[in-house]
Amino acid sequence: MTNPAPAGWLATLERRAQLRGRAGLTRVLRPRPADDNVTDLAGNDYLGLARHPKVTAAAAEALRGYGLGATGSRLVRGATDAHERIEDALAALAGADFALVYSSGYLANLGVIRALSRPGTLLVNDAHNHASLIDGCRLAGARTVTVDHADPDAVAAALAEAPGRPAIVITESVFSVDGDLAPLAELHAVARRHGALLLVDDAHALGVLGERGAGAVADAGLAGEPDVVITATLAKALGGAGGVVAGPTALRQHLLDTGRTFIYDTALPPAVAAGVHAALDIAAAGEPLRAELRDRALTATTRLRDAGLAVPTPAAGVLSVAAPDAVAAVAWAGACRDDGVAVGCFRPPSTPDNRSRLRLTINVGVPRADFEHALDVIVEHAP
Amino acid sequence: MTNPAPAGWLATLERRAQLRGRAGLTRVLRPRPADDNVTDLAGNDYLGLARHPKVTAAAAEALRGYGLGATGSRLVRGATDAHERIEDALAALAGADFALVYSSGYLANLGVIRALSRPGTLLVNDAHNHASLIDGCRLAGARTVTVDHADPDAVAAALAEAPGRPAIVITESVFSVDGDLAPLAELHAVARRHGALLLVDDAHALGVLGERGAGAVADAGLAGEPDVVITATLAKALGGAGGVVAGPTALRQHLLDTGRTFIYDTALPPAVAAGVHAALDIAAAGEPLRAELRDRALTATTRLRDAGLAVPTPAAGVLSVAAPDAVAAVAWAGACRDDGVAVGCFRPPSTPDNRSRLRLTINVGVPRADFEHALDVIVEHAP
Ligand SMILES: Cc1ncc(COP(=O)(O)O)c(C=O)c1O
Ligand SMILES: Cc1ncc(COP(=O)(O)O)c(C=O)c1O
Repeated sequence: MTNPAPAGWLATLERRAQLRGRAGLTRVLRPRPADDNVTDLAGNDYLGLARHPKVTAAAAEALRGYGLGATGSRLVRGATDAHERIEDALAALAGADFALVYSSGYLANLGVIRALSRPGTLLVNDAHNHASLIDGCRLAGARTVTVDHADPDAVAAALAEAPGRPAIVITESVFSVDGDLAPLAELHAVARRHGALLLVDDAHALGVLGERGAGAVADAGLAGEPDVVITATLAKALGGAGGVVAGPTALRQHLLDTGRTFIYDTALPPAVAAGVHAALDIAAAGEPLRAELRDRALTATTRLRDAGLAVPTPAAGVLSVAAPDAVAAVAWAGACRDDGVAVGCFRPPSTPDNRSRLRLTINVGVPRADFEHALDVIVEHAP
Repeated sequence: MTNPAPAGWLATLERRAQLRGRAGLTRVLRPRPADDNVTDLAGNDYLGLARHPKVTAAAAEALRGYGLGATGSRLVRGATDAHERIEDALAALAGADFALVYSSGYLANLGVIRALSRPGTLLVNDAHNHASLIDGCRLAGARTVTVDHADPDAVAAALAEAPGRPAIVITESVFSVDGDLAPLAELHAVARRHGALLLVDDAHALGVLGERGAGAVADAGLAGEPDVVITATLAKALGGAGGVVAGPTALRQHLLDTGRTFIYDTALPPAVAAGVHAALDIAAAGEPLRAELRDRALTATTRLRDAGLAVPTPAAGVLSVAAPDAVAAVAWAGACRDDGVAVGCFRPPSTPDNRSRLRLTINVGVPRADFEHALDVIVEHAP
């Protein structure tokens, strides 16, 4: 096609949208009001802290002090003492030498993988890794080998193929779609044996697993190891927004000097940093919240399995419930929504295995009775 | 090196940090308190809206209503009516069919370039483009040709090399380092002639240029053209955080269904969206603010040139002042800071030409007398 009419590209987009529509892969934005009276089994506010009065009060006070935005990148004008305080608290919680806050978990992952990679680096990527990790590998431009999910032997084999080459083993801790836990200690042993780094995205475990909610890396006894780098988002159990990279001291200056998504991006709003800090304090002292979360995850798994649904054992607050196909998953989620229950509906390309499912999350801020009723609704509408 | 000790990679990072240190390329985070009594010529809060009481009040009210974070990605649980309202307002202001909000301008750029690229697409990238646009090209995995800065003939030549191939011409409007304006009308004419798309990052022009601050694309008469896509950040003149993509209708569904940085990223906090909306209303009605900004840009250029400094004519609120080298630039910025004036200090790799400079920005929220005094300080400490 030579010199397509200006609108040719739009026609192409429309055609592709129609194809996706026929396959049940159209996505719809459904804006919610501030108070939508829906029972939330879809968000990632595991500890119910996004609406905690101390969290919103801390953010509101910081708004008055700092204004709305950070007004610049961290290195130019955007670094405030609110950022420094949450970084100190995150490093202490995770048992790392330092923590650097990014504007999102996505950019934290892109930035650290890129900064740690040189042309000769080998990136070993778990098959179920989050889009931001996959994109990090892609952006790094280093050789990437995707290995079987949660399989230390596969990782070892990939590392053995390239002896002596600098390598990074990249995994989530609690996987975002299926809710299972990576074998972190085994992965670390393999990485250590080959002189590789282990990079763990602790997004769904920070605040949820480990003593004081320190995360899955700490829970696996790997806090402070010199060959472990942690990333996470501040948008899940900590109820806010932003991302973080934590690890050994020398990495900090490297990210400040060379990390593109740190240097060239506006800092997280100080008020969000302050709100997240308040959430972190509550989360660290929140063993009862974590106990309730564990109990609800068990309750939900039992209830759904009793109803004949296929549910892998959840390691934290994420449950995956198999659906026959994309169209059935959409219908199921829609029926739940009509009955006042929000569930995640994950379809290709958002699922690692190209299979569709409902994705349920535990939010202990939801009243227990509403939560149990929501399980009934989900079972009732199962295809 | 076979099986390096676990700490080997840290020693490597330290060695590279030392090399950067000797070249004057070490970066230092300097957290500021909420009120640092510094005159800001470094941030991007062009209209002084980050601290506007209506902006912070709107954000504080939304905090009470929605809580701190969005608690999920836009498609799962993170879309609120606060997002919808700012999207409607942004689309109306820019004269586009739709606007979609992202959690940052960086992720908006990465996402839209990736989503619009197929393996055969040609990306034509201005040599001065922002890191997020360059990374977008890299992530897209499509063939990228970097052309001379602000040169429609170079763009035409690149497009002529690949006749009939889908292509995207990618440029900033007001360039973030030197503050000059891209020849948008000419670039559009070239793109149109070759059936290519024109993607314009309007980050430094939204709120600043054009009627009602509609941006440089609108100001060039290109609003609503079917082959123009706009991106921007909400973190500069709009004083908040977040990014936006705006364009013709069909692009919206394409981004919802396939845009990875939209789908797999937690939504912008609703309170930030609400604060940005209040800022947009003020900016749209803010012709006096823009007149003051133009006047200050002229005043600064004249004053600095009169002192013998090299300053390209600014198109909006960004001024670039040449420095002899990285070490001198750091010393100059440090001396200004010691006298209570914050300026940007841009060194390689943050400069497109590998030359160091001070980067000054106009913030009309700074009292005029402080602004003029700051110019004296900058001149006084010039190397
Ligand atoms: C495992 C994982 N990593 C990274 C991210 C990205 O974090 P953010 O939403 O802060 O960009 C997410 C989810 O959003 C995630 O589930
Ligand atoms: C031209 C340009 N595009 C994009 C961005 C990124 O926007 P954000 O800071 O919202 O990620 C910036 C600056 O931060 C910029 O200057």
